[in-house]
Amino acid sequence: MDDTCLFCRIASGALPAHRVYEDDHILAFLDLHPIRAGHVLVIPKTHHVWFEDLPEDLATRITRCAQRLAKRMKALYEVERVAMFYTGIHVPHAHAHVVPMHHVHDVTSQVYISEDPDTYATPPQLPPPEMEEIARKLRTQE
Amino acid sequence: MDDTCLFCRIASGALPAHRVYEDDHILAFLDLHPIRAGHVLVIPKTHHVWFEDLPEDLATRITRCAQRLAKRMKALYEVERVAMFYTGIHVPHAHAHVVPMHHVHDVTSQVYISEDPDTYATPPQLPPPEMEEIARKLRTQE
Repeated sequence: MDDTCLFCRIASGALPAHRVYEDDHILAFLDLHPIRAGHVLVIPKTHHVWFEDLPEDLATRITRCAQRLAKRMKALYEVERVAMFYTGIHVPHAHAHVVPMHHVHDVTSQVYISEDPDTYATPPQLPPPEMEEIARKLRTQE
Repeated sequence: MDDTCLFCRIASGALPAHRVYEDDHILAFLDLHPIRAGHVLVIPKTHHVWFEDLPEDLATRITRCAQRLAKRMKALYEVERVAMFYTGIHVPHAHAHVVPMHHVHDVTSQVYISEDPDTYATPPQLPPPEMEEIARKLRTQE
């Protein structure tokens, strides 16, 4: 618990939120500035800055909660897709966004937005030797 | 295994890919049209359409792989943030994107992009009674 962290203070109840799910380990609540109505944030109650810092048990609980919310959102909002994403923007306390997708660019990249916002721009391919070099550098063994 | 599915065919080896990680259950490979160099997709080898369909064990393996890749990308590309996201766009076989964030809008929403692309637009708040009604409808019990 970090007293200066907005999401720690929401988790502890020191700050209010529109709560959607809560247990001893995680909390889901509405994003105050939603991409779409129903946009939810799912956070661990303990303070971890980045999603890659999350212990496996907490990450799994967050994903399971997001999966349940996605099914609920599909029924409520009649959307084909629900997005889940971690970007680490704004609040340095790991948080998964869960958003009903009414438009392909509701969750996107600036490079996917072409001049016509209803189509997807395809970023250019890189030369195969460069791709192989990138893959070699990223290759991991568990 | 769905023979008509692009990602099933990559998982089986019928189609090539720049592989980054592989085990009996999941595969990580480079996105052919990367948002940024190092953009990876992590997929289950079995065919599940949406992220919310993923069995817990598979979803956990994908997240763990994305976490390892995020740490590797931060070291390789010297970025502060790595994004992980599922949107379900294009290929109907659940896939997590892992992307080194060189810019706040590398992974974003169209509603977050203001006229100045280096700042974040803040979507408007909804009236509190509407938020409470949304939260009530989404509220889940495990």
